[in-house]
Amino acid sequence: MHTKAINFGEKFDKFTKQWSPKIIAQMNDYHFKLVKVEGDFTWHHHPDTDEVFIVLEGQLRIDFRDGSVTLNAGEMTVIPKGVEHKPFAAAECRILLVEPAGTVNTGDAGGKQTAQDEWI
Amino acid sequence: MHTKAINFGEKFDKFTKQWSPKIIAQMNDYHFKLVKVEGDFTWHHHPDTDEVFIVLEGQLRIDFRDGSVTLNAGEMTVIPKGVEHKPFAAAECRILLVEPAGTVNTGDAGGKQTAQDEWI
Repeated sequence: MHTKAINFGEKFDKFTKQWSPKIIAQMNDYHFKLVKVEGDFTWHHHPDTDEVFIVLEGQLRIDFRDGSVTLNAGEMTVIPKGVEHKPFAAAECRILLVEPAGTVNTGDAGGKQTAQDEWI
Repeated sequence: MHTKAINFGEKFDKFTKQWSPKIIAQMNDYHFKLVKVEGDFTWHHHPDTDEVFIVLEGQLRIDFRDGSVTLNAGEMTVIPKGVEHKPFAAAECRILLVEPAGTVNTGDAGGKQTAQDEWI
């Protein structure tokens, strides 16, 4: 057997720390990561890659320098590479991220919210 | 503004044909596709890429030559490249696929279930 079911709920039960993406799967050189977010993240961009946010529970607002997009559960968006953005959630929101392996959560910005992604 | 919310439910309302993936987003050179499936698909593999199945509604069974995996809503799996598989759903199941742009649904097998992916 070459594959298994990966259950989002079971994986979310394995961690509580917010803004700290956890890798749950790899497809080619891309990682699928679960993250819990609440409050404000840092402004940043990813100079070399697009980034996908899929909201699984809750509501996420992503601010841009010229507007914002609000995502509810069952919605996704693609952040184009190089575009500055700042995620925000009024209450804890659960997200599936898709991005190349090695993508740093704070992009170019660094700082104290930078996380070391780990597999769960 | 560089991005928008993509709502899975609204996209699913745009088509009824089963086993016919519809592209809803592109991240780098990867496509995100929605598909409705029911019954048996053809045995096939993708010689050059892994493939991700995320079940959004319903239940999907993926058969392999040496076993099977069952996915319910809120579960995903990665089919490694080159591994023969055959999706099956007893009732209509709604899936989000992630794979490189240009990936053909029937892989190496071809045949009448081969679809021409289109954007919705």
